[in-house]
Amino acid sequence: MDDNVRDVWLDCDPGHDDALAIILAGYDKLLNLLGVSTVAGNQVVEKVTLNALGTLTASGLSSIEIHGESGLEFAEGGSMQDYAVGSPLPQKAVMLMFERISAQFAKRGRPVCLVCTGALTNAALLLLLYPEVIPMIEVVLMGGCIGSGNTGPVVEFNMQTDPEAAKVVFEAGVRSLTMVPLEVTHTALATPAVLLRIAQRQTPFLQLMQKLLLFFAQTYKEVFNFEHPPLHDPLAVFYVACPSAFTVRRMRVDIETCSTLSAGQTVCDIHRRQNALPENASVALTVDVEKFWDSMIAAILKADMLSPLNISSNNIA
Amino acid sequence: MDDNVRDVWLDCDPGHDDALAIILAGYDKLLNLLGVSTVAGNQVVEKVTLNALGTLTASGLSSIEIHGESGLEFAEGGSMQDYAVGSPLPQKAVMLMFERISAQFAKRGRPVCLVCTGALTNAALLLLLYPEVIPMIEVVLMGGCIGSGNTGPVVEFNMQTDPEAAKVVFEAGVRSLTMVPLEVTHTALATPAVLLRIAQRQTPFLQLMQKLLLFFAQTYKEVFNFEHPPLHDPLAVFYVACPSAFTVRRMRVDIETCSTLSAGQTVCDIHRRQNALPENASVALTVDVEKFWDSMIAAILKADMLSPLNISSNNIA
Amino acid sequence: MDDNVRDVWLDCDPGHDDALAIILAGYDKLLNLLGVSTVAGNQVVEKVTLNALGTLTASGLSSIEIHGESGLEFAEGGSMQDYAVGSPLPQKAVMLMFERISAQFAKRGRPVCLVCTGALTNAALLLLLYPEVIPMIEVVLMGGCIGSGNTGPVVEFNMQTDPEAAKVVFEAGVRSLTMVPLEVTHTALATPAVLLRIAQRQTPFLQLMQKLLLFFAQTYKEVFNFEHPPLHDPLAVFYVACPSAFTVRRMRVDIETCSTLSAGQTVCDIHRRQNALPENASVALTVDVEKFWDSMIAAILKADMLSPLNISSNNIA
Amino acid sequence: MDDNVRDVWLDCDPGHDDALAIILAGYDKLLNLLGVSTVAGNQVVEKVTLNALGTLTASGLSSIEIHGESGLEFAEGGSMQDYAVGSPLPQKAVMLMFERISAQFAKRGRPVCLVCTGALTNAALLLLLYPEVIPMIEVVLMGGCIGSGNTGPVVEFNMQTDPEAAKVVFEAGVRSLTMVPLEVTHTALATPAVLLRIAQRQTPFLQLMQKLLLFFAQTYKEVFNFEHPPLHDPLAVFYVACPSAFTVRRMRVDIETCSTLSAGQTVCDIHRRQNALPENASVALTVDVEKFWDSMIAAILKADMLSPLNISSNNIA
Repeated sequence: MDDNVRDVWLDCDPGHDDALAIILAGYDKLLNLLGVSTVAGNQVVEKVTLNALGTLTASGLSSIEIHGESGLEFAEGGSMQDYAVGSPLPQKAVMLMFERISAQFAKRGRPVCLVCTGALTNAALLLLLYPEVIPMIEVVLMGGCIGSGNTGPVVEFNMQTDPEAAKVVFEAGVRSLTMVPLEVTHTALATPAVLLRIAQRQTPFLQLMQKLLLFFAQTYKEVFNFEHPPLHDPLAVFYVACPSAFTVRRMRVDIETCSTLSAGQTVCDIHRRQNALPENASVALTVDVEKFWDSMIAAILKADMLSPLNISSNNIA
Repeated sequence: MDDNVRDVWLDCDPGHDDALAIILAGYDKLLNLLGVSTVAGNQVVEKVTLNALGTLTASGLSSIEIHGESGLEFAEGGSMQDYAVGSPLPQKAVMLMFERISAQFAKRGRPVCLVCTGALTNAALLLLLYPEVIPMIEVVLMGGCIGSGNTGPVVEFNMQTDPEAAKVVFEAGVRSLTMVPLEVTHTALATPAVLLRIAQRQTPFLQLMQKLLLFFAQTYKEVFNFEHPPLHDPLAVFYVACPSAFTVRRMRVDIETCSTLSAGQTVCDIHRRQNALPENASVALTVDVEKFWDSMIAAILKADMLSPLNISSNNIA
Repeated sequence: MDDNVRDVWLDCDPGHDDALAIILAGYDKLLNLLGVSTVAGNQVVEKVTLNALGTLTASGLSSIEIHGESGLEFAEGGSMQDYAVGSPLPQKAVMLMFERISAQFAKRGRPVCLVCTGALTNAALLLLLYPEVIPMIEVVLMGGCIGSGNTGPVVEFNMQTDPEAAKVVFEAGVRSLTMVPLEVTHTALATPAVLLRIAQRQTPFLQLMQKLLLFFAQTYKEVFNFEHPPLHDPLAVFYVACPSAFTVRRMRVDIETCSTLSAGQTVCDIHRRQNALPENASVALTVDVEKFWDSMIAAILKADMLSPLNISSNNIA
Repeated sequence: MDDNVRDVWLDCDPGHDDALAIILAGYDKLLNLLGVSTVAGNQVVEKVTLNALGTLTASGLSSIEIHGESGLEFAEGGSMQDYAVGSPLPQKAVMLMFERISAQFAKRGRPVCLVCTGALTNAALLLLLYPEVIPMIEVVLMGGCIGSGNTGPVVEFNMQTDPEAAKVVFEAGVRSLTMVPLEVTHTALATPAVLLRIAQRQTPFLQLMQKLLLFFAQTYKEVFNFEHPPLHDPLAVFYVACPSAFTVRRMRVDIETCSTLSAGQTVCDIHRRQNALPENASVALTVDVEKFWDSMIAAILKADMLSPLNISSNNIA
């Protein structure tokens, strides 16, 4: 395998923009997606697992392993779970993460990137149960914020969902931990110009992508009053593929777990105001948005060429 | 008295840029400075009291009442305390604040602006001891931050000095509370162009002002790596004189008092992420920096005309 | 004055057993009651002030100064406030406490005992506003617990009412601070044998005392399932009169102010498990209950001889 | 198998009195010990695992499975680890706990007792990773306190070692959770009379037991000033064998995880002071100490009959 290609495990909670994170991780030429695991957050874990499975199926990535809890049937349809074919592997996600990551680490002799785009529950359990995995991984996560949050005044959703898990991950001593915070993801907006680039062909798969982004745009407009919706999760995947598109700063990040005002806050010591504790994270400050969309759209178009939806168009919802 | 003129009580901890806050409060034509009280913070209270007294004396404001703890002699010189003539009133600051504020409220029938440019210790004691003062005052304070802090990752110095007092003040239910945070004061920089405007005359008083600002510039360069130093405290005074120069937003602000990571944080719900508690503060977001400097320099030049330093120049340190 | 007689200021929140604390402080031959102040807790401060005033009047102690907030009329009767004659002094309690305590300290050259039988709000404000009072006082308080609490699993009512104030008092560095906790007060029960000793005469005042204790017994039976009611507050007064009737142990006591489970807990390091912080309190462990009742009943019988209720019996409720 | 015999999994951290807990669990006729796992606490996990293995070997229980981290060699000798023969199973303790517990639950159709005599780290990981185990287990733990603690003013050692884990266990909703606190274990003292009962034979194994208890007595004397040492851990095992020897009370127990004064405190609502949260634990209040020693000594004497130490006496340290 090309030495520039990075091994990736993606832990996500689709849901929302995680579908695009899966597509980017599955099709970017610089990434080798080992598998996908799911964690509760946007939905209960059964639903996010089905959504992940549906995304993998619809985008022609059904050879990718997925690990999550048992896939129950749900009454309400209309999301990626409609496309789910097959089923997640029956083992616990955490054990399979360890198995695949340690095997790949042994084979290639270099760390695997664990990309987390949901709450850090699985990542924390992995680190607690298998401390021997620490030297085998680098962690890149979407989440946290330097200033204002999205689901609390100073707190971002993924960190708020499981603050104790976040604390475990930030303090585990992994060789490299990169946080892509709201300040960065809020610059990667799905503008009409971006939508047009996906609308260049009208295949069933691309129509599905457009529907997904339009739905997402509408939600962000209603809930957060954004003119155009930010794509949070693919940014963390993109960081692994193209770190040079980001500016980052090393700093100390502590996770608040106790305050009733700010549990889940990523307290970022961006100006090095306290010196007692060592730096433990690289925090992304900016991203080259054009480069991101180039990579993201390239991945979508590759998925479009392999999507089973385009072969039998009567599958389309 | 002109109805547009606002009654002001200034509670400060000079020290630093508080000297300019005193001058602005004493000379702005839209402000009527009732008195000055001091609170520990930048220095022990005896020293900040002497500094305040020195500022009042040097800038020709010796008729203004000042209330603080007993003025001990200090060995190390070189600051405003060298100019102190007279002595602070012997009563407790809190009692005299109440006495003067309630008398003025009775006389003019409109609230007095309590401007706090240090820790909120005195303000909190005033509110606890005299809850009847609540309808008589509006509070404007320099302090807090929406995002990153100055003496902690997410904490500003004044709020960090006495978080419990800050909590009392923010939750007291005063008719109006305005917070001028770091995000605003960091835009009001004492640039060389500003310094030049003060250097137009070379009187002893203006030379003293230049020395003060240059010393301040040097400190900020060394400690915080600012190219030009921000003037925090006069901004709160300026808000009372000219609120139209600011954009502000009403929001809920809670004070963190418990977290070891962030005690003193002003948790600003700028995007209304939580709805349980009512809005309790106006937070300044921007200031018209030109207008501020126009007012600030006008006040300095007025002080220059009345400064006793300019009469007997051998008083200069 | 006899050198063995201790000067006492009583800060209380009657209410409940505080009435007996007032009587003991007013009539014990080893105590010189300088004055009484009131603090909100069992009731709003206006009501506790009236109750204190009523107790002073009914028990013939109307020459004792009392300081509290303005005495509003209340519709519901039946408590000590029915007997209130005169009115509390108009000044703030905290200022008058300082005035009287410092005057007495100057006169006798020995510390005044500040006995607190309610929340520590007034005591904390006194210490914050007048740090110069610290060497002039010793503090004895009823409150806190070593183990289980009364209004929370590990929290006692007085401390729970104002934990921040308690923290201020315990950390103020007063020359002597003694805490009489629930473990001690729960041993001083008003048994039928005790009631009988008060029933030896059937004067209006003694009938009132019996009514008070019976009401108290009933409440404790219903709310806390005590066979006989404990008398909390007079124990703190009794400690000043007769410290030799108690066993006490010096230890570190910290006040929990943050935990949602235990705000107000008096964390008593009875077995010296942590060594970082110095001992700051004497905690009473046992009391000689017989001696307490002897003193308490002697005081009640003295009050009975001077009570105006016994002169014009048609005053009786 | 006799229906009265309870299946037990023992999670411990020997070290100290856990050795006696293992012997009681292995030999009491009413208990069926499925296996032993170890958790860091008294020592690093490698050492406690060796100690557990040594105890199993020396007491003739080498058929019992033990699961822990890899057994490194340690230089300092003199404890149970000297007797370790064989090695712990290579899998993670948590996975094997689940495997054995769920298999036994399937076989016997009744819950397995998970007895924890150390920090609750393993128990919490088991519950987080395998929520399906919740209906399969009852938990009995040695730890916590109602009043004063042993390693902190209000905190017991096992709970203090991993408060977050304790919180997970107490809030997991297991069908039954019983806590045996310090108040109970401090009544089960290894007095000279008890020691004499073990000294009735002078076999190598019984001599080892005497040495263990004498060492324990000495430590307690020096560190905690106990005349005779309490045996904490076997009490939790004894509760499973003989619940009728205890008085217990159902109550709400919350775990403090945040306070710097009391992290790890088991806040026991023994008098039902708060009603917001449901009862979640049975807390032991007393134990019949005679019955405990009868069972404990019976187990030791059974172990003595099977101990390999007694066969080849030159094994004795």
